[in-house]
Amino acid sequence: MNKIEHLGIAVHDLEASNALFEKLMGVPHYKIEEVASEGVRTSFFKAGPNKIELLQAIDDNSPIAKFLEKRGEGIHHIAFAVDDIVAEIERLVQEGFSVLNTTPKKGADNKLVAFLHPKGTNGVLIELCQEVPDLGEELPQ
Amino acid sequence: MNKIEHLGIAVHDLEASNALFEKLMGVPHYKIEEVASEGVRTSFFKAGPNKIELLQAIDDNSPIAKFLEKRGEGIHHIAFAVDDIVAEIERLVQEGFSVLNTTPKKGADNKLVAFLHPKGTNGVLIELCQEVPDLGEELPQ
Repeated sequence: MNKIEHLGIAVHDLEASNALFEKLMGVPHYKIEEVASEGVRTSFFKAGPNKIELLQAIDDNSPIAKFLEKRGEGIHHIAFAVDDIVAEIERLVQEGFSVLNTTPKKGADNKLVAFLHPKGTNGVLIELCQEVPDLGEELPQ
Repeated sequence: MNKIEHLGIAVHDLEASNALFEKLMGVPHYKIEEVASEGVRTSFFKAGPNKIELLQAIDDNSPIAKFLEKRGEGIHHIAFAVDDIVAEIERLVQEGFSVLNTTPKKGADNKLVAFLHPKGTNGVLIELCQEVPDLGEELPQ
């Protein structure tokens, strides 16, 4: 694992938490992004080489809505940056980990992502992520 | 905040979790340290500029024993590296955060540390830490 890419924190009210984390981190969030497929709206803060991602549910069936209902606000997942997510998934499956996405999917912040089941990792929801080019900013062919 | 210095994960069995995280991280832990004042035994793994700290209770009254009893295994706290912990505590108190240690205390891994109450930070237990020289390795005067 290259580094902790980000830490995901589930919150009820993204606007209020953005104001709180701006005071905490000493910097404003630099991006807000909605990931409709996950039913979340996210904001990002930088802390040197790492990021904090705040996650608010925009859909009652999203994993974040269920997490908030069951556990309340708090740390939801930790994401590690990897160079080659396909190779890393294969390595972890061979090591016996339960990888929830054996084919990586598109996540927030221009990433390919995959999650490991927390039952196999001491209760910690772990995300692998690999940065990919932002195709949305490419010029049309 | 300079970076995420480490992420603390509460576990029941440090030996078993060390073996698991060695497979996950692809590297062995580089240190085990007991912090008697906190009632914990800890191990550390590196992930680039960041660390993972596993925490096992060695005392039924330690905060980790209480966390495990209430929540089970999982992420216990996030620690941010700061240059001047005294100044950062003062800044955060002025911003209205509830700082549990207004005078920093000695933590694991040669750090001065202070915690913020999670009720004021969206349910996240946040540690500030400032690296200090390892006085134990100084030559006697």
